[in-house]
Amino acid sequence: MLLFYQPEIGNGVHHLNEEESRHAVKVLRLGTGQEIDLTNGQGQFYKARITEAHQKRCGFDISETKTVAPFPVHRHLAIAPTKNIDRLEWFVEKAVEFGVDRITPIICDHSERRIVKRERLHKKAVSAMKQSLKAWFPQIDEAMPYKSFLNQAEADQKFIAYVDNDNTDYLSKLKKASGSHLVLIGPEGDFSENEVRLAIESGFTTVSLGPSRLRTETAAIAAVHLLNL
Amino acid sequence: MLLFYQPEIGNGVHHLNEEESRHAVKVLRLGTGQEIDLTNGQGQFYKARITEAHQKRCGFDISETKTVAPFPVHRHLAIAPTKNIDRLEWFVEKAVEFGVDRITPIICDHSERRIVKRERLHKKAVSAMKQSLKAWFPQIDEAMPYKSFLNQAEADQKFIAYVDNDNTDYLSKLKKASGSHLVLIGPEGDFSENEVRLAIESGFTTVSLGPSRLRTETAAIAAVHLLNL
Repeated sequence: MLLFYQPEIGNGVHHLNEEESRHAVKVLRLGTGQEIDLTNGQGQFYKARITEAHQKRCGFDISETKTVAPFPVHRHLAIAPTKNIDRLEWFVEKAVEFGVDRITPIICDHSERRIVKRERLHKKAVSAMKQSLKAWFPQIDEAMPYKSFLNQAEADQKFIAYVDNDNTDYLSKLKKASGSHLVLIGPEGDFSENEVRLAIESGFTTVSLGPSRLRTETAAIAAVHLLNL
Repeated sequence: MLLFYQPEIGNGVHHLNEEESRHAVKVLRLGTGQEIDLTNGQGQFYKARITEAHQKRCGFDISETKTVAPFPVHRHLAIAPTKNIDRLEWFVEKAVEFGVDRITPIICDHSERRIVKRERLHKKAVSAMKQSLKAWFPQIDEAMPYKSFLNQAEADQKFIAYVDNDNTDYLSKLKKASGSHLVLIGPEGDFSENEVRLAIESGFTTVSLGPSRLRTETAAIAAVHLLNL
């Protein structure tokens, strides 16, 4: 099955955007009267028929709507962008496949990369949503400094992934089966001691993601996978 | 910490291979008398001193040996190679980071890719082992046809990841905390019905990896992560 994305359907928009139109009409050569599947990324799947096979503005009529309930757990990952941006984009793709509600790039003391193109992450997320046939599209934030993020971070359970050899419980053990969860994932050089202290002061719990030393994007995927179990 | 790999240490070899020697002496400019960390990929870490800073055959003397117990669960993944080989190589990297004991590429009825360069997977696994500071290197097999693999597959628990809408339990629920586990992951087009039937006849249990539709390499990573929990 092939899924098209039109976030504006709820606002009465009944045509595909330019990129999706080109894909449907020019690449797939779909014509008037043919049926397509759509999502608005906000919990609805639609069956629709093409009314105008326009290469830039492909019109459609919705024949059927199906609503998908949101996941019982709200999964929010705040991750320090990786030095190699491909690894962050890869994380976004995999996170959407598993299921994630919000991704916030955070710039940390030890971050080598301090700039992220939100558009590129958004694009990765869209293709992953279409490929994995999801009806929910995650919120993807602009990168923000670690401290500003901490000051506005809200969740029922707030975790910071940090390998403290003393006594850190596993996320798999601490996370509850419902409510909103937020997990912070540090950069290649890990969080600074000061950042960890600030997080704890802001009500975060330090957690381990397992016995292995994981790269930033691998740790983030482990966290997303655990929140989806 | 930087880790060097010399699988032959157990056989009395006390020099790095050509690639590792070049890296140590030419790239890192390590000299005689300097200390390096090594693993044989078979459960031992070593501290050693460079005795001859040779660019192709860097000699060393071992000063200290530390043994790491194998993981309580033997984790064997048999995966159909992805059409895009980068995705399979990426899986190998992540699987080694999480921890995996054996990887077998299997050629299935719906496999578009039927040839895999074992050397490339091996190389990916070596760099991932060094990067994630593992003392155990996984067995990486040559690709083999699905049926031949089934005929020789042995494990305490044998699973085939297949989304059967009727009644498939989650791997997270079925897998035991010890013993040997084998999980089969199919190609983009999934296993054929015949392949699933053959697996069940060979004592495999069908399992689901979760509610989401996952790409081949993502499903394989989910399986490895679950076996490591």
